[in-house]
Amino acid sequence: MNFVFFINGLVLLFFALLMVLDALFFGETGYFFLISALFAGLTGGAISLASSSSTLGLHRLHTFLLTSSVWITAAVAGSLPLYLWNLSAVDALFEAMSGITTTGSTVMTGLDATPRGIILWRAILQAVGGVGFIVTGIALLPILKVGGMQLFRTESSDKGEKELQNATSFASVTLRIYLFLMAACAFVYLLGGMSVFDAITHAMTTLSTGGYSGYDASFGHFDSAFLQWAATLFMLLGALPFAWYVRGVYRGTFRSEQVFAMLVSLGVVIGVLTIWLALTAHVDLFSAATLVAFNVVSVVTTTGYATTDYTQWGSFAVAVFFVLTAVGGCTGSTAGGAKAMRWLIFGRALKAQIRKIAIPHSVIAVHYEGRRVEDEVMNGVMAFMMFFVLTLGLLSVLLSLFGLDFATATSAALTSLANVGPGVGSVIGPAGNFASLGDPVKLILTLAMFLGRLEMITVYVLLLPIFWQELPTER
Amino acid sequence: MNFVFFINGLVLLFFALLMVLDALFFGETGYFFLISALFAGLTGGAISLASSSSTLGLHRLHTFLLTSSVWITAAVAGSLPLYLWNLSAVDALFEAMSGITTTGSTVMTGLDATPRGIILWRAILQAVGGVGFIVTGIALLPILKVGGMQLFRTESSDKGEKELQNATSFASVTLRIYLFLMAACAFVYLLGGMSVFDAITHAMTTLSTGGYSGYDASFGHFDSAFLQWAATLFMLLGALPFAWYVRGVYRGTFRSEQVFAMLVSLGVVIGVLTIWLALTAHVDLFSAATLVAFNVVSVVTTTGYATTDYTQWGSFAVAVFFVLTAVGGCTGSTAGGAKAMRWLIFGRALKAQIRKIAIPHSVIAVHYEGRRVEDEVMNGVMAFMMFFVLTLGLLSVLLSLFGLDFATATSAALTSLANVGPGVGSVIGPAGNFASLGDPVKLILTLAMFLGRLEMITVYVLLLPIFWQELPTER
Repeated sequence: MNFVFFINGLVLLFFALLMVLDALFFGETGYFFLISALFAGLTGGAISLASSSSTLGLHRLHTFLLTSSVWITAAVAGSLPLYLWNLSAVDALFEAMSGITTTGSTVMTGLDATPRGIILWRAILQAVGGVGFIVTGIALLPILKVGGMQLFRTESSDKGEKELQNATSFASVTLRIYLFLMAACAFVYLLGGMSVFDAITHAMTTLSTGGYSGYDASFGHFDSAFLQWAATLFMLLGALPFAWYVRGVYRGTFRSEQVFAMLVSLGVVIGVLTIWLALTAHVDLFSAATLVAFNVVSVVTTTGYATTDYTQWGSFAVAVFFVLTAVGGCTGSTAGGAKAMRWLIFGRALKAQIRKIAIPHSVIAVHYEGRRVEDEVMNGVMAFMMFFVLTLGLLSVLLSLFGLDFATATSAALTSLANVGPGVGSVIGPAGNFASLGDPVKLILTLAMFLGRLEMITVYVLLLPIFWQELPTER
Repeated sequence: MNFVFFINGLVLLFFALLMVLDALFFGETGYFFLISALFAGLTGGAISLASSSSTLGLHRLHTFLLTSSVWITAAVAGSLPLYLWNLSAVDALFEAMSGITTTGSTVMTGLDATPRGIILWRAILQAVGGVGFIVTGIALLPILKVGGMQLFRTESSDKGEKELQNATSFASVTLRIYLFLMAACAFVYLLGGMSVFDAITHAMTTLSTGGYSGYDASFGHFDSAFLQWAATLFMLLGALPFAWYVRGVYRGTFRSEQVFAMLVSLGVVIGVLTIWLALTAHVDLFSAATLVAFNVVSVVTTTGYATTDYTQWGSFAVAVFFVLTAVGGCTGSTAGGAKAMRWLIFGRALKAQIRKIAIPHSVIAVHYEGRRVEDEVMNGVMAFMMFFVLTLGLLSVLLSLFGLDFATATSAALTSLANVGPGVGSVIGPAGNFASLGDPVKLILTLAMFLGRLEMITVYVLLLPIFWQELPTER
């Protein structure tokens, strides 16, 4: 338990370092960042010193507390400079949680005139949050067996894959790939005509599938087909499993059912919507493809940039984008949502179910990546899907209690839970933002983003009385 | 297979008989009903004579075809007099499917001035559809093992309950209870001041949880608290499991987890909404309770009567009613929706899942009515819930393709799939109706009502290639 505090202390120290960094680059807002750094650094230092860095006595149940608490600590630390600068406490927490969970919903308006130190801070939050989620998804969730993620644990141990041998070396490889892709993205953005600052901050929020932009018009600020296609590519790269890159680099094999499934479905959806848009809005095919590919990839990868208000494309497009909001990228990437791996196993399990009803003596065997999926993993995936729908329903009803209309309430809940960013409707759609919502609504959505990032179940476990009964007391 | 045709022939003959009955009572529209009767009777007679009444060689897979085809035949037969009278083919099919599935959505306007022969026909469709669904739910679905319904099969065979010994005697007992409750309801309605015609037709559409009314204002036409509370009671009685009545009458035990759960949840929701309405709309507590109890019970029992436009109660009420639309009554009743039994097993399974994640070596055992729920039943329940959500999503997107806005599309799909009746929004809300929708939309909703009544999976099985490969060919 001591170790849980220790890590949270380290997180605070790390954020203090990031704040100092931000202050160094942008003196205008440096004051707010230095004060925050002082506060976070002192608190973090004190907590780390008072606790123990030893994992001795760390029980499996402590890992749940560790995972949940780290994200809360990061959000609170991230909100400090925003609060000191200008935002209300609720707005600062919302904005920081949206950043760290790489959701990208914003309560800030007038971004074009916002100090660049603040814009950089939002990009830093997403870049850090992205790598944090990859590590959580690959190292922690499989141990916690949340949402069928143990699949990735068995995968590595069964095959004895050397590259996943230990979390430390894996994290370092992941980080290098992540930084390499980010640098490549920034370079391409520079080539496309962005300023150095825009290129770097947008590369950070692209690869983390976060979607914060320094401009009110989001990525639509850059009126360049080249830049928009570049962003489409790099958002996609951010939503691919990082273990897949590792495997590809070290073993030269790029086969992956979930990557294949995601790319094929994206192709189909983009194709259909492009034709729909070309026909109904009388746009030429290339412009239609540019618009559709960017915005569809942005929503499916849970980035949340927008280049246009696609909710103006008619009710069919609204429905499609609403559904896409729940889809998500690949497991083991920076993307949120239900994720391709789960959709695949889910679809196959349902097909096996109907088959079993038709032919009762047939054997139900669901395969994934050539191996049979254990019942435990299948139940985990099913449970995830169920909790997703139930949490969505509950959050929607809660939001409606504060006066949000039906479409706004459900889409706000969904976009937060799936860590996407924009919703549908005039208020929170791609052309709007979350600023005008009331404080209780913002707090509910902050909770939703947190739940979504931790795949809900990690947090729900903490609500069981048995969790606290079984939690080992300190020696 | 021959037997499948035989039964469909009998259904046509039975509907011919009902049509003659309607013609006898109401000469004004008698012509349309006699022509329909002639047509249905001749076709039905020919099919029955040409096929065999023997169940010899009836394979389990034929039962899927039997179940699906009977409902389609009934809807088509039911639509005949409506089509001949005045409605378009699509409208007639929609109205008949809505009747036979006891959904209660209507495409007819000016009901107050509609010939009573037509109003009676709509009530007959619902009364017949109600008893048809009880028999389907108790005798067929458990054999087909659809949506965990085999629970009711094991229940009877495990305990050797005499009252469920054979389907024929059970159907006759059920029919007697159903008719008795209907008569009691009509009597109470008469006491409350309804005309004989109104009392009988509304009793038929109350107990079948259908919700067709002879008036445009639905049950709101009867401005009497007594009548509204009476209807509340009898809608509730229609949504209780008929096997529960049988057990109660023959064995004196009324214990049932799903009945208890439904009543408790109804009590809580009605309580909360009553207080909400009394506070926000400044209505006195008794009036608020009357309004809330009637409309909540109407939606949860999937009846679909309305006494007021509850979507005017604000966004919280809209969200609550939307969620309630998916809840449904008890299994083995005339009600649709996901149903109390499934919600109970579903909730317990999810709780067991989280518990298992927290304490991996704990044993997952879900109980229902004091017995352990087998994995097969649990998977069936989970699959039902999943298909419900997926079908809902798919139907919503399809509907949006024809221009329905987000709230209208999702709530139209949901209210049809759950066989409730009214949706939310200005078009299809409790104060509106389905008349203004386009033909493709009406056909999609007709399909949705059909899918909902057959608990989806019964129909989906027919889409598997393996179903047709395994189907025994005629000897």
